[in-house]
Amino acid sequence: MSNRPLILISNDDGVQAQGIHVLTAMMHSLGDVIVVAPDGPRSASSCCISPITGVSVKLLRQEEGLLEYQCSGTPTDCVKLALEALVPRKPDLVVSGINHGDNASISLHYSGTVGAALEACMKQVPAIAYSLRTRSQQCNFAPYRQVILSTARYVLEHGLPQDVLLNVNFPEVDELKGTKVCRTSRGVWMKEMEPVGEPTLQGRTITQGDFRLTGYFQNLEPDAEGTDYWALDHGYASITPLQLDMTASAWLEELRASQTFL
Amino acid sequence: MSNRPLILISNDDGVQAQGIHVLTAMMHSLGDVIVVAPDGPRSASSCCISPITGVSVKLLRQEEGLLEYQCSGTPTDCVKLALEALVPRKPDLVVSGINHGDNASISLHYSGTVGAALEACMKQVPAIAYSLRTRSQQCNFAPYRQVILSTARYVLEHGLPQDVLLNVNFPEVDELKGTKVCRTSRGVWMKEMEPVGEPTLQGRTITQGDFRLTGYFQNLEPDAEGTDYWALDHGYASITPLQLDMTASAWLEELRASQTFL
Repeated sequence: MSNRPLILISNDDGVQAQGIHVLTAMMHSLGDVIVVAPDGPRSASSCCISPITGVSVKLLRQEEGLLEYQCSGTPTDCVKLALEALVPRKPDLVVSGINHGDNASISLHYSGTVGAALEACMKQVPAIAYSLRTRSQQCNFAPYRQVILSTARYVLEHGLPQDVLLNVNFPEVDELKGTKVCRTSRGVWMKEMEPVGEPTLQGRTITQGDFRLTGYFQNLEPDAEGTDYWALDHGYASITPLQLDMTASAWLEELRASQTFL
Repeated sequence: MSNRPLILISNDDGVQAQGIHVLTAMMHSLGDVIVVAPDGPRSASSCCISPITGVSVKLLRQEEGLLEYQCSGTPTDCVKLALEALVPRKPDLVVSGINHGDNASISLHYSGTVGAALEACMKQVPAIAYSLRTRSQQCNFAPYRQVILSTARYVLEHGLPQDVLLNVNFPEVDELKGTKVCRTSRGVWMKEMEPVGEPTLQGRTITQGDFRLTGYFQNLEPDAEGTDYWALDHGYASITPLQLDMTASAWLEELRASQTFL
């Protein structure tokens, strides 16, 4: 490896996904690259890890300034393994994606793409998650190239505040209107469990059944201009800084003052 | 079901774990209970869901005011399925645990126990995650009974602020010193990947290898009295309010003002 910046790449769609190939090519223009990604789709794996099965890793490709691995684990496993066993030195940046499907609003909690970036952040490496609002596995990523390169360059140059990562989402458009720095929108997933066949009943109580996961997302504040969903709905890329600490600080102070639990 | 409060229970150690049996008995003293828990251990499953496999559910036990199901999915799947298909009405409270192992500091991001409570919170049902700092599968939960009942009673009576849940952790003690309302401590997991056998090398580059997950947690602020880890280290139960919204609000404002990404 050279003296160029070292960039670690992962995702949750798997090492063969188009999004990670595009991201790898983009990052290779900025530095040396190590890809460590799941050996198949791991959508919705959140920060899940594999303590029961362990993980296997295999080098797929080695070129000038580029190593590409597949790993049997989750995106979080990939980042843990890469940082501990595969990188020649601490990376300057970890990027995750480009995910096929957005990870805005509460969807970020389920996202393996965001999970990989969170893991890097927990290990004090600046991290960015990139996702595209699409259901397609073959996309035109050209409209997002400039924002991806400029955010990655910014973080390589300036770093990020302690315990903060960036969650970047793109709308599927031919041309971005621009970028918006956003908070996450409030939202809810609806109708997520669809019976496969008829569940067995005893009176009105289900005693046995099979279900497939489905559902649709409902934005609870569609008119809130400062949110990630608003930005995506209006043709902008959303850039949302996330923090590791989930403490509800405002209510914490209230709760302490009230002495409710003393 | 009666007119008593309805309480949904899940966990990530599986329906057979001691912790969920104890929690079920405690909650049954407060209301009607539905248990929907994984059919085996799902530790570290975070907010992972099962879109590829789907889920199956089976009623194990039906008594006065008590239904107990096992589900093939993750804790998050369990809560989604329960709320959508198994409960006769929206529960008044969702509790998760009692986890065998603490979920304080950053460990909460990996936790399926916290994941289940987060899912309930996303569905606007008040939720509490309970975890015990232990490695043992057989524990004496008696010292925690009073705090569990009083926190559950409080939330049944008062609810919780919008998009906030409670993360309650216990130290393994014969007698609690009391409770502390806490923020999460900063921390880091170390040495998490241990090679199984010798990895295959090409020069200094690993080309193939198997790893098992291990590691130890290092608290980065052991003297910070207001944190969950401090409370546990000093014999107190920690009660940490968490919020769904992970936006790094302070830096968001700075970033907007700086117009960095415009």
